Amino acid sequence: MRKNILLTPGPTPLPPKIMEAMARPIIHHRTPQFQAVIKEVSDGLKYVYQTVNDVFMLASSGTGAMEAAVINLLSPGDCALIVQAGKFGERWTELCKAYGITAEVIDVEWGKAVEAQEISRRLKANPKIKAVFTTLCETSTGVATDITAIGKVVKETPAVLVVDAISGLGAIDLKSDEWSCDMVVSGSQKGLMLPPGLGFISVSPKAMKLVEESKSGRYYFDLRKAKKALDKTDTAFTPAITLIIALAEVLRMIKEDGLASIFVRHKKMADATRAAMKGLGLELFAPAAASDAVTAVKVPTGLDGEKLVKTMRDTYGVTIAGGQDELKGKVIRIAHMGFIEEFDIITGISCLEKVLTQMGYKFNLGAGVRAAEEIFLK
Amino acid sequence: MRKNILLTPGPTPLPPKIMEAMARPIIHHRTPQFQAVIKEVSDGLKYVYQTVNDVFMLASSGTGAMEAAVINLLSPGDCALIVQAGKFGERWTELCKAYGITAEVIDVEWGKAVEAQEISRRLKANPKIKAVFTTLCETSTGVATDITAIGKVVKETPAVLVVDAISGLGAIDLKSDEWSCDMVVSGSQKGLMLPPGLGFISVSPKAMKLVEESKSGRYYFDLRKAKKALDKTDTAFTPAITLIIALAEVLRMIKEDGLASIFVRHKKMADATRAAMKGLGLELFAPAAASDAVTAVKVPTGLDGEKLVKTMRDTYGVTIAGGQDELKGKVIRIAHMGFIEEFDIITGISCLEKVLTQMGYKFNLGAGVRAAEEIFLK
Repeated sequence: MRKNILLTPGPTPLPPKIMEAMARPIIHHRTPQFQAVIKEVSDGLKYVYQTVNDVFMLASSGTGAMEAAVINLLSPGDCALIVQAGKFGERWTELCKAYGITAEVIDVEWGKAVEAQEISRRLKANPKIKAVFTTLCETSTGVATDITAIGKVVKETPAVLVVDAISGLGAIDLKSDEWSCDMVVSGSQKGLMLPPGLGFISVSPKAMKLVEESKSGRYYFDLRKAKKALDKTDTAFTPAITLIIALAEVLRMIKEDGLASIFVRHKKMADATRAAMKGLGLELFAPAAASDAVTAVKVPTGLDGEKLVKTMRDTYGVTIAGGQDELKGKVIRIAHMGFIEEFDIITGISCLEKVLTQMGYKFNLGAGVRAAEEIFLK
Repeated sequence: MRKNILLTPGPTPLPPKIMEAMARPIIHHRTPQFQAVIKEVSDGLKYVYQTVNDVFMLASSGTGAMEAAVINLLSPGDCALIVQAGKFGERWTELCKAYGITAEVIDVEWGKAVEAQEISRRLKANPKIKAVFTTLCETSTGVATDITAIGKVVKETPAVLVVDAISGLGAIDLKSDEWSCDMVVSGSQKGLMLPPGLGFISVSPKAMKLVEESKSGRYYFDLRKAKKALDKTDTAFTPAITLIIALAEVLRMIKEDGLASIFVRHKKMADATRAAMKGLGLELFAPAAASDAVTAVKVPTGLDGEKLVKTMRDTYGVTIAGGQDELKGKVIRIAHMGFIEEFDIITGISCLEKVLTQMGYKFNLGAGVRAAEEIFLK
């Protein structure tokens, strides 16, 4: 009899229409019927990406698409500049290391965002840097990166700008072309409201030049193969058919709502969540650069953050995320992206109030929910 | 009002229970609930693989798992022996080439199977060969490879035996351990009756030694990461949650039926299909080494094979496969694996009879169906 509420930064809940699409009989992928789907989702992805460039689909999770970016842009021995401000920034560094690419790392304190002028300084100091790797929304800390400012800096150089938008695409604004993003990587299980299993990657003409030149070994994630296939409305290898058919539904829903209205909805949920935390006397982990996709909150001293998350999930069916790596037990993360709405947030806050009370934390019962309601009423 | 029948060698039709599982609300993957699923499918995969070794799951299509085999076993400059008897054997060669591995190719005529003694001869002549790459069922030609015999040859050498069982696993017998297969690669969308999007790979202790030594760049498909994660009942990266939950259902179904009974069912469908083709006066493409997973049939001279497939699919809703690459237009391929049963085969044959008649091919109407019925009555 228990309802389960998912407030995690991936996977996010599935809309009923998507669950229905997932349940359809499968169709073959080398048919005119599926080609029509590829055509539709290619156009729809361009809308969400706000780009005129090709957006390739990969049967992989987001990390696979990140790997595709690294190996298609750079050869062993090449130089990359990496903004590392959390677990997912670190992934760029790990990927470069795995492929023999020299990674120059801007190590940003977890919870803070990088300054565009630091990137400018590094690019000037090291003209060998061929690509700058960034993270739109660093899920591990809840920090949003100012991609607009970074784009302005990078576009003046021969380097390309790569954005990991796995967390954030379709939830917060990312004008790929206007902001001069050369490659934007994403995944299906966050703002796009699908199960995990699809990776996406857009490629600008500036990036495509590097793709053609890269000497890194590549096959499954070879974007030259992906391009050749997409030019024939096909995929290089057997696609994740069911997810792509569900993606077509999602993209229709997104177009119907319109990106602008979706971003406003996410901002309101983020504002409400942040107000609620303040109402409960809790401190935001990244107050100066908080993303509208996920909010990280410090666990009050003396409370066991892992137990808090576990109790909410296992006793009450409300799944939020705990901290990762160095933040383990120290923060909780409440996602407000994708198919999550006002009353899911209220439920999450109410459940948090319940468990905080049971764990002995002192606050004004109802103060979190009330603060959120005030925002939602605006 | 048209029913669609899928008789293609991937994707294969989804059982209703699987469609229902695909439609369930999603759960988070870092939870005890999903850990229980990982535990269950890991055991179930060992049953289907007939192995005691770990079977790793990758969020990718089968080619991703093939790439994982190549880069985890071999370093640039290493030597591989490849059995190339069709499009999927060629994929091993292409993969090795993409990663700087020297590929010694046994070029087998399409429609024929390799002789184990040829592999023995090559291994003796070139002791630098570290891995032998084979294909259980070459989907492009319908040929089954004698893995038992090859296993006996390879196990006496320092080389490892890698089997692409993407087409075939769960449909035809493959005793991974008994036949000394060191790595068996597979995918979700064939004998395992799921949508595409999951790759599988088993690793023997002999292969694991090479995995630890390989100097190839690797990250997303790094099996050391996969092993470290699976040892903690986890996956290295966000898994294709929905497909894995559906996989748990499939594996329960397979266990309930039992592999032995499943292989008998597939053999009967293959026998019926082959008898039907004979009844229609059509010639099998690979009579001497026909697989029980898919049957390739020569298109009679003068008939347009592509039109035949297209008419069956677009006019009558029965999807079979045509020929690939050098066999384009020259063969048709009828799959009988996964969730396909007796009367699906009858439907496929009946539809083939209808379109052959309309295309002016002369035969005894009903002779194909009758021949199949005779086999099914046995």
